[in-house]
This record gives sequence, structure tokens and C-alpha cells, in this order.
Amino acid sequence: MKQLNDYAEGERVITFCLVKQRELATASNQKEYFNLELADQSGTLPAKVWDVTEELKEIIQVKAIVKIDATVQMYRGKKQLVIQRIRLASASDEVGHESLVQASPVPQDELWASLQGYVGKLKSQTLRQVIEHLLGEPDLQDRLRSFPAGVKMHHNYYSGLMEHIVSLLTLADRILPLYPQVDRDSLYATCILHDIGKLYELSDAIAPEYSTPGQLIGHLVMGVELVSDACRALGISPQDSEILHLKHCILSHHGDVDLGYGSAVSGKTPTAVLFHYLDQIDSKMNALGQTLTQMEEEWDYAPVLRRRVWRGY
Amino acid sequence: MKQLNDYAEGERVITFCLVKQRELATASNQKEYFNLELADQSGTLPAKVWDVTEELKEIIQVKAIVKIDATVQMYRGKKQLVIQRIRLASASDEVGHESLVQASPVPQDELWASLQGYVGKLKSQTLRQVIEHLLGEPDLQDRLRSFPAGVKMHHNYYSGLMEHIVSLLTLADRILPLYPQVDRDSLYATCILHDIGKLYELSDAIAPEYSTPGQLIGHLVMGVELVSDACRALGISPQDSEILHLKHCILSHHGDVDLGYGSAVSGKTPTAVLFHYLDQIDSKMNALGQTLTQMEEEWDYAPVLRRRVWRGY
Amino acid sequence: MKQLNDYAEGERVITFCLVKQRELATASNQKEYFNLELADQSGTLPAKVWDVTEELKEIIQVKAIVKIDATVQMYRGKKQLVIQRIRLASASDEVGHESLVQASPVPQDELWASLQGYVGKLKSQTLRQVIEHLLGEPDLQDRLRSFPAGVKMHHNYYSGLMEHIVSLLTLADRILPLYPQVDRDSLYATCILHDIGKLYELSDAIAPEYSTPGQLIGHLVMGVELVSDACRALGISPQDSEILHLKHCILSHHGDVDLGYGSAVSGKTPTAVLFHYLDQIDSKMNALGQTLTQMEEEWDYAPVLRRRVWRGY
Amino acid sequence: MKQLNDYAEGERVITFCLVKQRELATASNQKEYFNLELADQSGTLPAKVWDVTEELKEIIQVKAIVKIDATVQMYRGKKQLVIQRIRLASASDEVGHESLVQASPVPQDELWASLQGYVGKLKSQTLRQVIEHLLGEPDLQDRLRSFPAGVKMHHNYYSGLMEHIVSLLTLADRILPLYPQVDRDSLYATCILHDIGKLYELSDAIAPEYSTPGQLIGHLVMGVELVSDACRALGISPQDSEILHLKHCILSHHGDVDLGYGSAVSGKTPTAVLFHYLDQIDSKMNALGQTLTQMEEEWDYAPVLRRRVWRGY
Amino acid sequence: MKQLNDYAEGERVITFCLVKQRELATASNQKEYFNLELADQSGTLPAKVWDVTEELKEIIQVKAIVKIDATVQMYRGKKQLVIQRIRLASASDEVGHESLVQASPVPQDELWASLQGYVGKLKSQTLRQVIEHLLGEPDLQDRLRSFPAGVKMHHNYYSGLMEHIVSLLTLADRILPLYPQVDRDSLYATCILHDIGKLYELSDAIAPEYSTPGQLIGHLVMGVELVSDACRALGISPQDSEILHLKHCILSHHGDVDLGYGSAVSGKTPTAVLFHYLDQIDSKMNALGQTLTQMEEEWDYAPVLRRRVWRGY
Amino acid sequence: MKQLNDYAEGERVITFCLVKQRELATASNQKEYFNLELADQSGTLPAKVWDVTEELKEIIQVKAIVKIDATVQMYRGKKQLVIQRIRLASASDEVGHESLVQASPVPQDELWASLQGYVGKLKSQTLRQVIEHLLGEPDLQDRLRSFPAGVKMHHNYYSGLMEHIVSLLTLADRILPLYPQVDRDSLYATCILHDIGKLYELSDAIAPEYSTPGQLIGHLVMGVELVSDACRALGISPQDSEILHLKHCILSHHGDVDLGYGSAVSGKTPTAVLFHYLDQIDSKMNALGQTLTQMEEEWDYAPVLRRRVWRGY
Repeated sequence: MKQLNDYAEGERVITFCLVKQRELATASNQKEYFNLELADQSGTLPAKVWDVTEELKEIIQVKAIVKIDATVQMYRGKKQLVIQRIRLASASDEVGHESLVQASPVPQDELWASLQGYVGKLKSQTLRQVIEHLLGEPDLQDRLRSFPAGVKMHHNYYSGLMEHIVSLLTLADRILPLYPQVDRDSLYATCILHDIGKLYELSDAIAPEYSTPGQLIGHLVMGVELVSDACRALGISPQDSEILHLKHCILSHHGDVDLGYGSAVSGKTPTAVLFHYLDQIDSKMNALGQTLTQMEEEWDYAPVLRRRVWRGY
Repeated sequence: MKQLNDYAEGERVITFCLVKQRELATASNQKEYFNLELADQSGTLPAKVWDVTEELKEIIQVKAIVKIDATVQMYRGKKQLVIQRIRLASASDEVGHESLVQASPVPQDELWASLQGYVGKLKSQTLRQVIEHLLGEPDLQDRLRSFPAGVKMHHNYYSGLMEHIVSLLTLADRILPLYPQVDRDSLYATCILHDIGKLYELSDAIAPEYSTPGQLIGHLVMGVELVSDACRALGISPQDSEILHLKHCILSHHGDVDLGYGSAVSGKTPTAVLFHYLDQIDSKMNALGQTLTQMEEEWDYAPVLRRRVWRGY
Repeated sequence: MKQLNDYAEGERVITFCLVKQRELATASNQKEYFNLELADQSGTLPAKVWDVTEELKEIIQVKAIVKIDATVQMYRGKKQLVIQRIRLASASDEVGHESLVQASPVPQDELWASLQGYVGKLKSQTLRQVIEHLLGEPDLQDRLRSFPAGVKMHHNYYSGLMEHIVSLLTLADRILPLYPQVDRDSLYATCILHDIGKLYELSDAIAPEYSTPGQLIGHLVMGVELVSDACRALGISPQDSEILHLKHCILSHHGDVDLGYGSAVSGKTPTAVLFHYLDQIDSKMNALGQTLTQMEEEWDYAPVLRRRVWRGY
Repeated sequence: MKQLNDYAEGERVITFCLVKQRELATASNQKEYFNLELADQSGTLPAKVWDVTEELKEIIQVKAIVKIDATVQMYRGKKQLVIQRIRLASASDEVGHESLVQASPVPQDELWASLQGYVGKLKSQTLRQVIEHLLGEPDLQDRLRSFPAGVKMHHNYYSGLMEHIVSLLTLADRILPLYPQVDRDSLYATCILHDIGKLYELSDAIAPEYSTPGQLIGHLVMGVELVSDACRALGISPQDSEILHLKHCILSHHGDVDLGYGSAVSGKTPTAVLFHYLDQIDSKMNALGQTLTQMEEEWDYAPVLRRRVWRGY
Repeated sequence: MKQLNDYAEGERVITFCLVKQRELATASNQKEYFNLELADQSGTLPAKVWDVTEELKEIIQVKAIVKIDATVQMYRGKKQLVIQRIRLASASDEVGHESLVQASPVPQDELWASLQGYVGKLKSQTLRQVIEHLLGEPDLQDRLRSFPAGVKMHHNYYSGLMEHIVSLLTLADRILPLYPQVDRDSLYATCILHDIGKLYELSDAIAPEYSTPGQLIGHLVMGVELVSDACRALGISPQDSEILHLKHCILSHHGDVDLGYGSAVSGKTPTAVLFHYLDQIDSKMNALGQTLTQMEEEWDYAPVLRRRVWRGY
Repeated sequence: MKQLNDYAEGERVITFCLVKQRELATASNQKEYFNLELADQSGTLPAKVWDVTEELKEIIQVKAIVKIDATVQMYRGKKQLVIQRIRLASASDEVGHESLVQASPVPQDELWASLQGYVGKLKSQTLRQVIEHLLGEPDLQDRLRSFPAGVKMHHNYYSGLMEHIVSLLTLADRILPLYPQVDRDSLYATCILHDIGKLYELSDAIAPEYSTPGQLIGHLVMGVELVSDACRALGISPQDSEILHLKHCILSHHGDVDLGYGSAVSGKTPTAVLFHYLDQIDSKMNALGQTLTQMEEEWDYAPVLRRRVWRGY
């Protein structure tokens, strides 16, 4: 099916999409209009609704699913939709949120199966129990299956966090034979749990915002608290060396404290030091991959590096 | 009673003291000797034992209480003890560690009573319960009554942490009427619990070293975990706003994250922002107070500021 | 009386106000219009005048007092005034600048009396003479009674600097008993004089801009020069220890030199070190207080911290 | 054979070793003595020669191979050799430098074969030609087979650079399937050539010092010049995209320019960005591996991180 | 002849100019219009074309020379052109790019002669040969005679780089007698060649953009490669001390590496250290000179310093 | 006459010299000895006195002039004096401090005459009056003729500050014709007065230490206060533009405020910006010149750059 970003300048678009942002503005002729950001699986497009009724003001809200009849125009070099008609989707339209958001290219169930495979490989009873306990908790599992790894930057789409985790596990798996000074099980466990706090730092999978606990505590410490909760439920001592090490890896995964990127401690084991670099690699490669895919010129700006990057030969 | 630092150059010293550091060295004539650091309530002095027997090598260990017969000499402008005789204290000598370490100028019981007074003032049931639960735990209470606030720098002596807490509470108490945007109970609770993790980050009160959990997790997150433990025991929801705020204040008390001093989150409420400055004030004033007390010249080096300070007029 | 910010969307506003900013723009239909920023005691609002005559271009200037007949509209989620009629206030309107600017919540005379009270408490003849000499100088006194503490950020309103000074004195007064290593009179004097250079760094109290001397010399050194002038007039030696210390506290109150915030020397006494933190506390608490008061959501952006802050529970 | 570091306190040592450092000092009795640093494959030990003749002063020089008769003593907690007799090794002793320096645990020829294997895998004619040309040059090949990757920190031993290269290639090989946005041949070529400039930045493989060109130009630019030389010899255009990209990866491998670690440009392709992290991983893991192997306590200082690290459970 | 920036508000402008930037925008009435940036020797002006035909969309491109019939209007306090008629210049108009770009105030040929004069003063055969070889290369000479020293900031106009070089040579000439520790010929050579890489880092002299090699390699290393090429052509050893020193000065001219401004090595000779400051002086003085010339108020913003500057008395 | 640093290892030295530092130490045989630092015009040498009497302890003090009978020995690769006999110089020895300290290579009177010559060139009545007033003040003149420019680093010898000033004036004189945007008289005046505060920041010319006012106020603000004093004495308004500008140049000469090197304001005129670089050039060239003169190897450590520098070819 044709998606939002597939339409060219001048084409008419009749489709369902999701309202990601909504602003009510006033034109120089004193009339109100909407600046919207609409989304489907192909990404987002800005949109304008010039005739705004009181009814529209009420029903067009963030996360609403709408059906539009619009035309694609160019504005400052970028496509935007000028909407002639817009209405809320009804139950009979049978359009769900999942069908309108960008999602991981790997199917959700495949990611989940890969993740389970790695959990099964853990030799450490302690670490496997903790992970199985956490991943078995229904609300956490639901979130883990659907959440992005972040609001912007990298793996910022449906099931993005799970894709990031599986990608890290694959990466770890391939690197481990080279560095026997790294603890295999700790590295696996850190790949799986390092961002687990994000499941509560963010509000939801569709239009994620930072939650109050997320802003007050941060996902590193939230992740450590989830690990502690699991240990308690399982009767594992909080002084257990493997657990201490796992927490250390989670708390240090943003790099050295004095860099100011939010680690609570600096990495003090080969495993912790290695994981920080793996996380950097996987997030930067994902973000650069997205930028390169969308580049139309040989050089373009990559937000993740805050500089222009080269598509190459 | 005359203390180690009361003796002048040339005087003979016969007293009990504590071995804080011990190094076995070899002189240019190939004979072994001891470089010791000895301590009593007046502070520490370097000491030399020129005749080292095999027996001495065994019994003179860090934290040992010894009786010495020595002479004070000057070496590179500083006093040192040259020891003629040294033996281990026996049970019959009735000399305890507490009598040989530098301690807070305020008596331990008085500090404890002041602290209890402030706990009693808390109007928030939640916060008072958490604090009473933690302070009522015997091991934690023992540690809290005796631990220093740190290995070096500030309140670095017996009961130093409790003195720091009471000093912060007094400070908070006096400032609160000026800033109604600050939450009184949260500020009290942060004063009491901000460094509570240090009780397990450090090994003991007499010759504190960093513990393995301390180095892997750090006292900020350890403190938050103690709060969570208390909540669980008390049936308080971890989503409780006051608890979230308390944790936020603990996790942000080292200042903005991008300064790289180890906060896990940057302060996002007036209470958190204020507490960071109060903690800076109380620790710097204590450290400068110690430096100024020991200054013999108009200007001298203050380790806490890494610069020379002025004693003033 | 109803103030600018009291009016709701759609209401008609007939009132006097002050022109704080003025820009002549051209609409897409090639007609000129005014973008104004209008103020009264309730704060400021953006305003548009669509019909601009040659006469209006001449009379509508920054600092002009005008009478408007306008309607409140919403533009990008914020209120703005669309002005139908506007004229200059005449003498017979009897509207002064003071009645149209935001001012300290504490009355000017009360602040002045508090300040005088603290001056009276100074035991040091030297410091009291210097302060009385400076505050007795009519032009300086006029400025001190009316100036804000800054253009943006904190205490940025009529009599704001005096409010900041009195707030700092109260704060100092309450903290001093805890830290005997701090010199009471020096701390009082620094509270009073630390920003005294701002009275000439800024142009005036109503619409303050940076003066040429202010930008070339800065308020720290300007303050020190005012102290030196006073000493000369009073026959006090510039080598006087109390004067040197006072200048040191003024020159170091932006924190350590290597932080790059503009201190000319780093603090080298407990008094100087403490004052920097008191100044940080009072300015941050004032700015956060203003942000919190205006917040409509649980979380909002606080310019002083350059991050979102939490209103709390 | 028993090595220098295998001897315990008090044991007599008769062995060949290499003079790494030499200082002629004067004791407090005015007699001269030697402070030496002696080395064999087990590492280095400090040594003292108390009876220094004129002849010894002449023959004991840095890089000399000597035979010693000595005793192991403890000095400030560390082992040192007190030498009774010392003489220069003669040709008949048949002791070469290679047998007395610490070397890569992987045999030199095995490393060389692995490296050749990866060169053979290159599909890009351009890149393979350049690498084969450089590695075929006899002086460069000699150096590459023997040089350390650095004077201190990581892979700082005989054939260390080649071990680092092969380790990076293996790492790259394993990671590449995960990130199709990375150019396989460019990554291989960068692994092989990124530090090629070090072969002339340093003086030799046994006791490496920085050369004059090394200090004036640095190994990044020296490496790029070697690539340019090869291109010229092979008739490859310096504007060739693959060559530009290879140079870019070499010049950016110390990370972003604004970090100040000496990159001449910041990485602008996925390959360049990835390689920087791979280089960090391999060098840090090697350095930490060395530290962990030598640790005798649970915690010890790791120079590469400038902090204490944990040996783990 | 009257230039673009000579016209006042309201005046009619009929002239030739160059299109520097071009954007096709859509007005709130849905009609397309052009935002152009037009230039002649007096600088640039923004311009609007309200009636955009399909033909205009095709012919109005960046670097096009056009003839306009327009009126000067004020928009947000700045002049802009509202264009009634616009057409492409034809061959018969005899208007070249050179006549429409801002150029160095010193005539190109005069700059070239000065530069040649300094080359003639070089006593070092090696350095003179290298420079003469490079400057004798036709493409490089063409570029050198016309290129700006940069896209923004300083000497950012036709022949700007040559003006910068001659200015630096004059500066060096005057300073050299004071510092005999500086090598005269190396300093001259560095003045001439330090930015020579910019001739290929940028695309062209009229509307310069960064080239792909420029962004991947950077002008410092590109300059060093040009020097190496010249040495090879001339049979000069790359190990020649004067050449090493010249390359060192080029590679270090952005200041110390740890400042993060892109030097590949930090300056390690008096000549290299001095040149960095000379380059700073000449570029800052040129940029400030341009700002001061255009200032209409006593204080205005200077982009090169990112702060407001004072025109003075 | 032969100077301290002219003697070779093993030679006997009988000469007068100055005690720069003095430490009473205790040898491992428990006997006291002196570690001295002795100086004459050739620089300093460490010295040891093994037989220390009570009388010697009293008379050998810092700044004492002594006559020694000693032998040159090598200690850790550096020359030291072992003193057999030492006595205080008497009046009849006719040895003054000036004859024993390192001094500027340019005679004091010649520097003074050059300085006067530049003062005479000032066209600005205001600036010339201020400078003549200050330089005419006897105590300041005495200090200016003899003080070093600093304790370490650059021009750190008798009359060093005056040499630095004259060198800067010569430099300014040669550069001014190139940059008409710089104000000649302001630049001259800044060269002369920028470090004038150092005359009171330091204690004296022979063995300079930081004074209390120097450490509390700093030489930038002290210099500005001297200018203000002169203006007052001369009836020049402190609002005079030339005076404001001069103060601005003094207060900003350590570079941009956010670099944290102690400027009170950032430079905001071409003159201020230029002077900072001239000061950097002259101080770095002087320090590097001293390092290069003493270098015995091709590469050696230069304290001013905190890196090794190259002597060159």
C-alpha cells in the first residue's frame, strides 16, 4: 500500500494516518489553522488544515487516528500536506496504531525469539533467573516488545529497543571469543538489561514522552532498581558478585563519569568498558544507517554526529 | 592527656597509638626499617623503626594498637617519631580504637540526639517512616554513629558523617523560611539520607577503605537502594511522589550531570538544586576550617580548593 | 485593577502600558505593521498594530507610555494583543513608569529599611563607613532603590537588586552562627556591595541596557572601583586588610576563575567561598520561583537551568 | 628457563638481561652507584650496582646485553636486584635482543600469516595493491613484524603492532555482517594501515623512542603519506574515492577533532566512526588484560583507565 | 557606479547582480515565490520575487548573473529587494562574475607581485624551489590568485587568500628581527603555504563550497600532501629537515591539539608557535575590520568573536 | 669572572653567591645537613652542606649573600655543589644582590631609555599624562626598573618586566602600520601598563613572592586601580573613553573569559584582541628562547608549553 512518504509533489493523498503533533496557529489574515505532524509507517510529514472548525479543534488531538484527503506541496524545499478534508477514524475503519507507526525492519516475534535464544545460553543461574523473572513480568514484556530505544536518534521506532538488544547480543556473541578477559554472561545480561529502565522512563510505544519518574531518576538507576526487585523476588543476595557486576555495567554504560554523559560510576571491569563501546557502535551505526538511507545528495547532515556525513562511492 | 601532636622536637614520647599505615623499607646500608604512620586523637605523625625484627614484622600491622617509646625529630621541616621501643597493646592496657582516632568535636550522643530531633519534626508520614526504619536498623545505626563523611577532605573523622548531617539540617532549618518554593520535608530527608550509601561504600569507621560494592555502585545509587528497601519493608509504593523526589535529590546532589562529578541526574526541583549548594557549603566550610586551624603562616595550601588560602586579619 | 496578563483570549483590553520593544515589519501583502512588546506590572505581552501611520512610526518608541484598545488572541499557543487603537499617554493621564513595570513583591521602602538595618549591625568601622558613604551618594542611592539585579534570569524587575541584597543578608544572618570561620562583617558587606557595579553597568531601571563602561570593565571591577573611591574620600588606606578582603570577595563572587564565569580571582577565604554559593542559591531560587509560579503543566522549561523542571506534588 | 620476575625475595639470580634504563647516582656517602632497569621476556626489574668502576661506566649502556650475578631484595614493597657482578654479554654467549624482550604471545610468523590472509580477502584491487605494495617494501616489513603498538599502554611489546592489527581484523571480520552500511574493504584496509605511520614515528622495536619526524608530523599524517607514496608508485589517482576514504579513516581514528586527541578530521562515514571504536576496544582490552594478569589484589590501578579496576569474581 | 548596498529604502534599483542563494517558497495564499540572495561588489541583499513563472524557476539558479528591476524595502529592520522584473544576463551584456563579487581591496596583480617578492627573498634553496614549483603550477596559480581565505569569517572574498598571505608575510617580516630564535625562511614558507590546501578544500572562487576531498582530508593535510608532491617532483628528500619543519608548521597552525581546533600536531618549535598567533592576529583583525566598517551603532555583534564589539571613540 | 654554572664536574669553586632556597634535612645517619639552592648571574645550582653547626643554622637564610668553598659533583645526572666551607659575606666584601642575580641581557638604563622614548611618542595627552605620572612615582619606578615579569616561565629575571614591555612596544610599533583598525596610543599604553600591577603583586625583585594584596586582588585589577589613582591625581575623568579603553585592554589581556585564564572581561576592541596575542607571542618566545639556549639534546622539555620542543636544524 502506498505510504505518506511515497507521494510526490502535486499528488492527491487519501489515507489513514496518526496525529503525532498538533498546533493551532493564527494566519496573518487572523484566521486559525492547524500545523500538524502526521505519521504512518513510512515516517512523518508536516500538514496544514486551513479551515478549522470548533469540532475539528476538539477531535484532532495527539495520537488520534485520522483519515485525510490532501495534496502534497513543497514548502521551503520540503514536502507538506495541505489537507482539504479530515475526519477521525472509526472502529469500522479497523486501523490500529501499530499499522501507522514506523517499526523495526525485523518482525517483533523474530526479535523476541532471538532474545529468548540468548537468555537460554546463559550459564549463570543467577543472571538467567533475574532476566527470566523480569522478562516474564507481563507489563514489562509488553513494553519491551513494543518500545523504541529512544525518542530521537537511534532505533527510534516500534520494537526499536528489542532490535537494539538483539543487535548488541549478536555483536557481543561475535566479539567475546577475542577477549577472554570479558565475562560472557555479564556481557549478555548487560546487553539485555542496560536500557530496561527506559520501559518506564518513557510513557508508551506510540508517542513516547518522558515520564515523571524517568526525568527524576533516569533509566540507568531505574534499570538497577528493576534488577534489585527481581533479586528480592528470587531470594538472590544483593551482595552477590554477579549482580553487583551487572549493576555496575548498567550504571557505567554512558562512559566515564567525568565526560558528563550521565554514568553514575565509571567502568572498572573489562566487561563494563567493552559494553560502553558496543552500545556506542550499535546506536551510531543504526542512526547513521537511517541517515544514509534517506540521503539524496552525496553529503548530508547526520543529527547523531552533529555534522555532515558522506554517502561514499 | 598529652597527645602525639603536642610533643615538641627533641621530646621523648611514651604513649599508645594506632598504626594507620605501615611500609617495610630498605636503607642504603641494606638494613630493613619501618615507615609507619601513627595516630591518636590529635592526628597522625610519621614514624621510623630502625631495628626491625622478624617478630615486629609480624605484629605491626595496619589498625594495630601499639605502645611506643620514641623521640620527636624534625625531617624536611616536619616532625617525625624515631622509635626506640614498640610493642602491641594488650587487653590489660584497656585502650580502645575509639580513644585513638580523631573524632567529631561534638559528642556522638549529642549528634544522635540532634538528628533524632529533626526526624521528629518531619510532617510527612512517608518520609519519617522511611528514615526511622533505616536509622532503626542496628548495623546501619552503628555505622552512622561512627563513620566519617569521607576518607579525606571534609568531616574525615570518627562520627564525621553524623556531624555533617546535623550541620546540614541546622543549615536547612535556618534557610527554609526564605524559600517557600523548597519542600521542607524533602530537604530534611535529603540532609539525613544523601550520603547514607557511604555507610556501605566504605569499609569501617577506624581505617576506612572503599568496599567492592562501593566502587562498583557508588554511594548515590547505594543510598537510593536503601530507600527502596525501606519502602518495600514499609509497604510504601516506589511510585510515591515524595519518595521519587527524595531519590531525585540523592541522585543529583553532586551537581549537574555535565559537570562530570557523578550525579546520575541533574537537579530538577528547587529542593534538589538548593541541597547541592548546601552540601558544597558545609563540606567546604568544614575542610577550610580544618586547614585554617592548622595554619602557621598567613597563607597556606588548602587541599579542598587546590590553592593557597588566606587566614585573614 | 485588571492587568495585561489577567485578560483571557477574546477579551477587549483598554489600558495604559509601556512599550518595551518595537519592530516595524512588512507583511506578505507588502504593508507595514508593528511587532511590539507591551508591559505593565503583570509582565509583558506581544502585540501587533496592523495599521501603521507615519505619525505612529514617530511616536511609538521604546519606553513610551501608551494607551491601547485591543483584543487578546492566541498565536502559536501564546496570548498576543491585536491593537485597534493606540495613542501616547499625556501628562493629564497621570501614569508614571513605576506603575507600569513589574516590581519586587516587597515594597521599595521596606527593602531600604531592611538594608539600613543590616548596615547598622556592622561592627567594623571601616566597612560601615564605606557602605554608608556609598549608599549616601544620591545618584547611587536612586539607582540602588530602583535597579533590577539583571536584564533576564533573576530579580529582573524594579527594585530587584535591593530585594536580592536583602535576601542575601537575611540568608547570611541565618547561616553565620554555623560557621565561625566566616567573617560576619565581611560577609554582610559583600552581600550589600557585590553587585553594586551593576548600577553603572546597566543604563537605567525601566528598560535596562548594558552601558559602554559596563561592557568594557564589567560590574565586578566597577564595584571594586566604587569601594576604592569611597576609601579615598574617607581617608581609609587601600592596603587596609578589611578592604582588601571585601574587594577579594567582590572579585571572586562568580566562582573559580578556571570555570570561566568571569571572576577576576578565585576565592581564597571561607567568606569568599561561602558568598559565591549564597549568591548562587538566592539567584537560582528566585529564578526557579518565577518559573514555578508561571507553570501550567507539571513539567516546564526553566531558562536559569536550561532544562525542564518539576513543579512537584 | 627461569625469568627475572620468577625469582622470589632473597634468591640469587644469575642470568642474561637487557639494560633498558641507566642512571649514575651518588649515595649519601659520596660514592657513585648505578640505578638500572633490567629486562627479559618476563618484564623489567629495577637494579642497583653499588661498586661502579670506570670501566663499568663505559660499557653499561642502554640496550646493552649483560650477564648479572645478583640477589632479589624488597624495597618499598617492590622487588629489586642488588648486583654483585655484572659483565657485557659476548658473541659467544649467543644471546640476542629478541630473546630478552617481552613479545606478543602469538608467534610472529603466525601473525604475519594471518595478516596476509586478510590481505588476500580484499576484493578492491586498489586497496589490495596499496597494501601489498607497502607490506612488500623490505624495511617497512621488517619494522611491521617487530614493532610494538606503542611505548606504553597497549600491545607495548615485540610484534605488538602486528598483534593489534590482526586482532582488529578478526574483530572487524566478526562485526561486519551486522552493519551493511560499513564498507568491508575500507575497514580491513584501515585495520591494517591505521598505525602504519608508527613504524617511522618510533625509532626501533627493542627500546623505542619517538623519532624527529614522528614528533613533528605524527603517525596519522605519516601513515597517509605512506599511502600516497604507494598510490604514486602504483599509478593510482590520489582522487580515487577508495583512497580518499582510507586516508579519511586513518586521519580520524583518534575520535572527534574537538575531543583534542589528535584526529586531523572527524569521522564522516560509518566505516570511520566504527573503526575508532574498534581501535578503542582492542587497545583497552589488551591493556586491561595485562593489568588483570599482574594483579595480586582484588582491586588494582590500571594505567590505561587512570583508575582502579576490579578483577571480579 | 552605484552598487546594491548604496540604495536607500524606497529607491528603485536597476542593475546586474549575481544569484548567491535561491529558495522557492510558498506564501500563506498558496502561491510560490522566490527568496533570493543577490550580490555585487558591495556585498549581498535578500530579495523576493512574488510572481514566479515556470520559466523563472528554470533559469534562476545559483551563480546565475541576472538583471533586476526592484525596489528597496525594509523588513525586520534590514533592507531587502522586492523584484518587479528579473531576467538572465546575456553575452551582449558583457557582465562577468568578477565584476559582481566582493574582492580584496588590493588589486590581484599587486598581491601577486608582493607574494613573488617574498618568494625571491628566501635564502633556502629547498623552500624556494618547493614554493616556486607549486606556484608555477597553472591550476594552483589560478586558484591562488582568486580564492577567498574562507567561506565566512575572514578574507572571505575574491583574492582573499592571497591578501591574507601577503598580509602575513608583511607581518612576519616586521616581527622577525625581534625573535632570532625563529627561522626566517620557515616562517615565510609557512605564511605562503599554510592554507594552500584550501585551494582544493573549496570548490571555486565565486560561490565556494566544501569539496569531497576537502571534507574527508582537510586543508592542513592537503597542504602537506602538496608539499610532498613538490618535493618528489624536485628530488628533495621527504626527510629533509626544512621540509619536515615546514610540514610541522602547517599541521600545527590551528593551535594546540588538545584545544580541538584541528591541528594534527601541537607546535614544537618557536616558528610553529609564533605562526599560529600571527594567523590568529591577521584573521581576527580582518574580520573585526569588516565588522567595524559596517557598524552603524557604537556597539554591534562581531561573528568572529561571537560577542558584541566596540567601535571606540 | 667565572660563574657558578661555568664550573665542570670535579672543579673547586670559591665564590660569592646568593641563597635562594634553604632546607634543613636529616640524613639516614640522623645527622642534619643543608639542601640549598645557590644563585649568581649564571643561574642556580643545588648545594649540600654536610656539617651543619648551630651558628650556620642561624646565619644561612634565604636572600643571604655567602662565600663558599665547594666542589662540583654529579647527582642524578645534574651538577650540585658539595660545600666544605661557607660564611656570610661582610660589608667589606662589597658584593651586592644585583651582582648575583640573573638579569635581562639588555642593560637596565638602556631599557629605561627605550621605554621613555615610546612614552614620548604618545600623541594622546590623556594617556601620556597617566603614564608619565605613574612612571614618575619613585617607588613604582624603582620596582619597574628591577622587577622580573614573573616568578617562573618568562622574563623571570632582574629587569625582566621592563625588557618585556620594551619588547612589546617594539613589536607593536612594527605591526601597527598593518592594522589601521587598532588604536596606536591605546596599544602603546597597554604594552607599558598591562602588567604594572605585578609591581605590587610580587614582593621584591631579588626573591619575588606573591604579596597578600597580589593574591587577593590580582595584577590585572591592581593595574586598573593604579590607572584610576593616576587619573584622580591628574583630574582626568574616569569616564574618559581612552581611559575606559586602556582599562579594558588591561582587564582582558589574559584572553577570553571563558578560557578561565583570569581575564575579568573578554576583549571587545581590535586593540584588546591584538594585545592578548602580542603578549602571548612575546612571553612564549622569551621562554622558548631560554629553553633552546640551555638545550643539550635535539629535543628537550619546555615548561612553558608543557611538551618537548625541537631545537631544529
